Amino acid sequence: MSLAGRTYLALVHHPVLNRDGRVVATAITNLDLHDIARASRTYGLGGYFVVTPVERQQALITRILSHWQTGMPGEQNAARRAALERVRVVPDLEALVAWVSKTHACRPILTATAARPSSDTVSWQSWARDRGRETRPAVLLFGTGWGLADAALALADLRLEPIWGPTDYNHLSVRSAVAICLDRLFGRLGPE
Amino acid sequence: MSLAGRTYLALVHHPVLNRDGRVVATAITNLDLHDIARASRTYGLGGYFVVTPVERQQALITRILSHWQTGMPGEQNAARRAALERVRVVPDLEALVAWVSKTHACRPILTATAARPSSDTVSWQSWARDRGRETRPAVLLFGTGWGLADAALALADLRLEPIWGPTDYNHLSVRSAVAICLDRLFGRLGPE
Repeated sequence: MSLAGRTYLALVHHPVLNRDGRVVATAITNLDLHDIARASRTYGLGGYFVVTPVERQQALITRILSHWQTGMPGEQNAARRAALERVRVVPDLEALVAWVSKTHACRPILTATAARPSSDTVSWQSWARDRGRETRPAVLLFGTGWGLADAALALADLRLEPIWGPTDYNHLSVRSAVAICLDRLFGRLGPE
Repeated sequence: MSLAGRTYLALVHHPVLNRDGRVVATAITNLDLHDIARASRTYGLGGYFVVTPVERQQALITRILSHWQTGMPGEQNAARRAALERVRVVPDLEALVAWVSKTHACRPILTATAARPSSDTVSWQSWARDRGRETRPAVLLFGTGWGLADAALALADLRLEPIWGPTDYNHLSVRSAVAICLDRLFGRLGPE
């Protein structure tokens, strides 16, 4: 199984930080579902998990997915359906790890992403090289709001280096960060 | 001046195709303004043009930009303001070319992007290499809706190859496509 095919993406809505540095559960953004599902499908990931403990938010996501899966026939929506059919909703990271562990009969390696620099990050190249050498599944964690809270970072086995362009500005949207991350790890110009 | 610093991005709302292949003017999407402005700032572009001939849409964009530039003080919004202050609204591609030509005293080279394969595309590597060897400004054209119409493609001097992951699915959002394109051309792992 390819590395991309055993890699899962998690968009975390809790525990994440708000602009004041407090731990909150953020609201889902409709375009996060679509953009990240389409990017995950483009790069051949095993699946895309939306993580939120808020039951009303879970129900909203399920309704949006159902709308596209059953309510929009026609060839023109087939591409959107093909992307959204790999989206799953889970209440927390533990449920995600349990699902992937059961599916692959192997506990996944969790990798956090963050815009903030840190001394213990791994490079894009080494992540793809080292993960390519093993067979266990992998999960990439992306935080909404102002980023993953310490409790989520502490669950991760690894942390990827931040995305930098040629400037000192690193305030990308999570949608843009996901797209760039997947292209760096799994794109045709990437390190694989 | 760096290649990124003399490169401009244009998000085209007309002339583009709708799902039936007809030429239309699409409506602006709020997150297109924010995500693409932040990505453009991250990769050090000279500016980001939103192209729409619809006066009410132009007024809406101006109002959104003004809201962030004057109505949201505080350090926490400084990053957003720094991105949005490089956004300009123009009615058509001719106005964009005129602005860049006047600013740089040189007509820019226009490069179209498209998800559809074509026999006359240039690779990511060759675009960055060849543009790096010259001094004139460059404009990257991105279509909304179902992509740039023939009239916009005909204005372009070059066309970049589509973005591919390891699958045959290439239905990225324009926000994701912009992020990946800028990272491929100007990111630290890119060909520059």
